[in-house]
Amino acid sequence: MSLDLTAYIRDIPDFPKPGILFKDITPLLADPAALKAAVHALADPYRDANLVSVAAIESRGFIFAAAVALELGCGFVPLRKPNKLPAATTSATYELEYGTDTIEVHVDAIHPGDRVAIIDDVIATGGTAAAAVELVETLGGNLVGISFLIDLAFLGGTAKIGNYPVHSVITYN
Amino acid sequence: MSLDLTAYIRDIPDFPKPGILFKDITPLLADPAALKAAVHALADPYRDANLVSVAAIESRGFIFAAAVALELGCGFVPLRKPNKLPAATTSATYELEYGTDTIEVHVDAIHPGDRVAIIDDVIATGGTAAAAVELVETLGGNLVGISFLIDLAFLGGTAKIGNYPVHSVITYN
Repeated sequence: MSLDLTAYIRDIPDFPKPGILFKDITPLLADPAALKAAVHALADPYRDANLVSVAAIESRGFIFAAAVALELGCGFVPLRKPNKLPAATTSATYELEYGTDTIEVHVDAIHPGDRVAIIDDVIATGGTAAAAVELVETLGGNLVGISFLIDLAFLGGTAKIGNYPVHSVITYN
Repeated sequence: MSLDLTAYIRDIPDFPKPGILFKDITPLLADPAALKAAVHALADPYRDANLVSVAAIESRGFIFAAAVALELGCGFVPLRKPNKLPAATTSATYELEYGTDTIEVHVDAIHPGDRVAIIDDVIATGGTAAAAVELVETLGGNLVGISFLIDLAFLGGTAKIGNYPVHSVITYN
């Protein structure tokens, strides 16, 4: 028997702005069985993948990715907002509705050929995910796949991340 | 045999500003054995504590706390920067060197009497930790303890968090 994880995600209308129906994962995080099931489901595609690391997008990606890394026995690489990582970094910038945003990775966090999976909680329009892909590519990582707890598929974000395998635990069409 | 976790923490001079020696935990995160040992050490004080949840401070606290929650079989409560949590929140504001900062929690995330531990990666001057304590107290949680991977003890931060048990995996004096 597997849990219906959608039962632990609540809709919050008009967040962060009017007309947006926000998928709130905090009830899932609060429930030990649901949290465990979510982490297992995120790890499942990579059990035989010999990953060197999972790369996690700040900050909700951090919640799941370290637990996934422990389950897979690999390392954890943070992909962070600007000016948070203390050593030498490379960055990728992506478009927002108004303006741009940037994420960074330590240049020594991923080595050429490292088998890496990217993890985040939600893919919406896909800008952040595409930037994360660019960071792994820039450092020469072997990107094995990209996983999300939730794909807001009606926004079409996965089209932005090229031909890499995408795994989503929950899809909203 | 236990790992010497300090071997996986590197000093970065002059970050985030001149004169500060930053303790960078990314080498620890990148190493599967060190990451596992750090999570085990953070969980250790609470194995018989019957926690309802671990409350994690955004964003590096998120990295460890979900893994600790899984290890303890409890839930995960995010304490977040302003305007990130979508439902009704309560907040706590604390002093910085220049100005103030705020963290928030969903008001339904902790119920009166819930046994809760707070987790973060580093305690420095203690402002964020004290604000996290205030959030748990405001919601009537039973705060069992506060745990850090690293205590920068020379900054005296733990003095700000009252009489609650404090557990630090690594202490720099």
